Amino acid sequence: MLARGGVDGIVRQGVVMAVKNAFYAQSGGVTAVINGSACGVLQTARQHVKEIGKVYAGRNGIIGALTEDLIDTSVESETAIAALKHTPGAAFGSCRYKLGLIQENRAQYERLIEVFRAYDIGFFFYNGGGDSQDTAYKVSQLSAQLSYPIVCVGIPKTIDNGLPITDCSPGFGSVAKYVATSLREAALDLAAMSLTSTKVFTMEVMGRHAGWTTAACALAAEHEGDGPHVLLLPEVAFNEQRFLAKVEESLERYDQCVIAVSEGVKGPDGEFLSASGLKDSFGHSQLGGGVAPFISNLITKKLGCKFHGRSPITSCARRATLPPTPISSTPMQSVVRRWNSQLLDGLR
Amino acid sequence: MLARGGVDGIVRQGVVMAVKNAFYAQSGGVTAVINGSACGVLQTARQHVKEIGKVYAGRNGIIGALTEDLIDTSVESETAIAALKHTPGAAFGSCRYKLGLIQENRAQYERLIEVFRAYDIGFFFYNGGGDSQDTAYKVSQLSAQLSYPIVCVGIPKTIDNGLPITDCSPGFGSVAKYVATSLREAALDLAAMSLTSTKVFTMEVMGRHAGWTTAACALAAEHEGDGPHVLLLPEVAFNEQRFLAKVEESLERYDQCVIAVSEGVKGPDGEFLSASGLKDSFGHSQLGGGVAPFISNLITKKLGCKFHGRSPITSCARRATLPPTPISSTPMQSVVRRWNSQLLDGLR
Repeated sequence: MLARGGVDGIVRQGVVMAVKNAFYAQSGGVTAVINGSACGVLQTARQHVKEIGKVYAGRNGIIGALTEDLIDTSVESETAIAALKHTPGAAFGSCRYKLGLIQENRAQYERLIEVFRAYDIGFFFYNGGGDSQDTAYKVSQLSAQLSYPIVCVGIPKTIDNGLPITDCSPGFGSVAKYVATSLREAALDLAAMSLTSTKVFTMEVMGRHAGWTTAACALAAEHEGDGPHVLLLPEVAFNEQRFLAKVEESLERYDQCVIAVSEGVKGPDGEFLSASGLKDSFGHSQLGGGVAPFISNLITKKLGCKFHGRSPITSCARRATLPPTPISSTPMQSVVRRWNSQLLDGLR
Repeated sequence: MLARGGVDGIVRQGVVMAVKNAFYAQSGGVTAVINGSACGVLQTARQHVKEIGKVYAGRNGIIGALTEDLIDTSVESETAIAALKHTPGAAFGSCRYKLGLIQENRAQYERLIEVFRAYDIGFFFYNGGGDSQDTAYKVSQLSAQLSYPIVCVGIPKTIDNGLPITDCSPGFGSVAKYVATSLREAALDLAAMSLTSTKVFTMEVMGRHAGWTTAACALAAEHEGDGPHVLLLPEVAFNEQRFLAKVEESLERYDQCVIAVSEGVKGPDGEFLSASGLKDSFGHSQLGGGVAPFISNLITKKLGCKFHGRSPITSCARRATLPPTPISSTPMQSVVRRWNSQLLDGLR
């Protein structure tokens, strides 16, 4: 292969090989670590100058490739690249944009490969969710068909940690620390107030199908009685009776109950406990904002507890977790038992 | 005054003075700094052994005094006391419990003073909100009437910074940093995605009557065009037309709009833009969870933007701020203008 070798060509196994450039793009909702992955790609490419030439980044994700809006990262200093590890947002811009099926959107795929060819791109790193991995696969297939084979590498962006083979997907460490810290803060606040106020907290946690993030809340507990007292995972069908018994047991034992619930928890019928009815731009059901109120209402109704929380929120900007939904509850009996004063009437 | 002097008595101006003990209690929803204030009281008292004896803390706030459940802080090490500065929750427990009017609840006030007398309390430090300051005042009045005068000091717990005379109430620094950081994170995420997705973020911020916390969001902006682009304060009556014009201007200029809104923003009629209809245990209207959706719906309706956020949450456990409510919006025109590709049809 002598084609396009030029000054960038290097000799390998007696043949002049072209050093191909790489294209990197960020996709979908940003997480706290997407720039960390970008840093990894850029730093590693710089360590392999004999295999990879320049790395171009797409401005606003894959749209940057379609519109030939490419950022040449080779002009950036080592320091700037290293700083990506601690930079929030998506440094090169992201987008919610799906290429779609090849048969229906062939022009777009061809345009992509045309741009890659013009910039001598031989490597495509696509940093995003499941749909991005799918796109990377399609590009790799089509590029082979069009006789311009590109090495396509999908870089996962999930914080759900729901990837086979890997122990920890990028970002899971951050989110585990974040949810566990948030839960501990909420649990300490709850403990401080539970005598006369809120006794039950529900924290809704991201996780459509994988409960790793919710399970990570368990890190908040160090001693017997520390929250969380109940974890609800999407992998386990919700059992109302068992759940309520657990909450009552916790109230009885610890005079409080901290619950962490995955947004994707399903009932025995396999339906999400509460779907918002909205769909995101990829056609997936948007969850969140529904399970914590469901749980709260259930406790209010079945355990006779007054609810004074508000609806929670999931947002990609806040990532991975929800602020706790406070629920006042509780049978004053358990409180009363511990009081020694003749002033109880006044305190009730 | 020789009474009660005993071994603790010291000679001042030729008379033996009793060194009175102090009582400290935490009240209401806990903030990130209530333990910092506790630390200040305890450390300062230890520096004035000639004026203040032991400091007792009430377990679960004022209820600890009513039920004679007092914690003797003098047995705690300097290190433990210093650690309070960085301890979340309420170290001695808090409560939502109001003593009420003296004429209707005289027995409770008398009980309080009876306990204070039994523990030789001459100083009462009450760390809480406006109601706690009021209680401290009442106790001071009644104690004088009952010939057991107590020095009562209210320690503010507000993060709203709405106190006259002080520049910064305890905790305002923390909350200012917290909301500004949260807003900047959200703004960076928004900027990364705004080409194809959400263009407007609304962050609801605590502040029933004072807009300091919302105003602190302005710290997030460093350069022209940085969010927040609109601040809505409770001190300024909401003007729908002016607000919408501001949002449109921001979208036109920066292709995005970040809004910080105080929970207590009122309309021209003086009514809260959205009261939840709930009351807290002190009878105050509970706000929050209402203004951001109101703003979001307004933008959706009047500017033709699709709303895909959820309701926000206010919670004393998360303090002072709300995660941003994402609103997808926007007239694709402004986006279109910046695109150069023949693929626009596909991107729309």
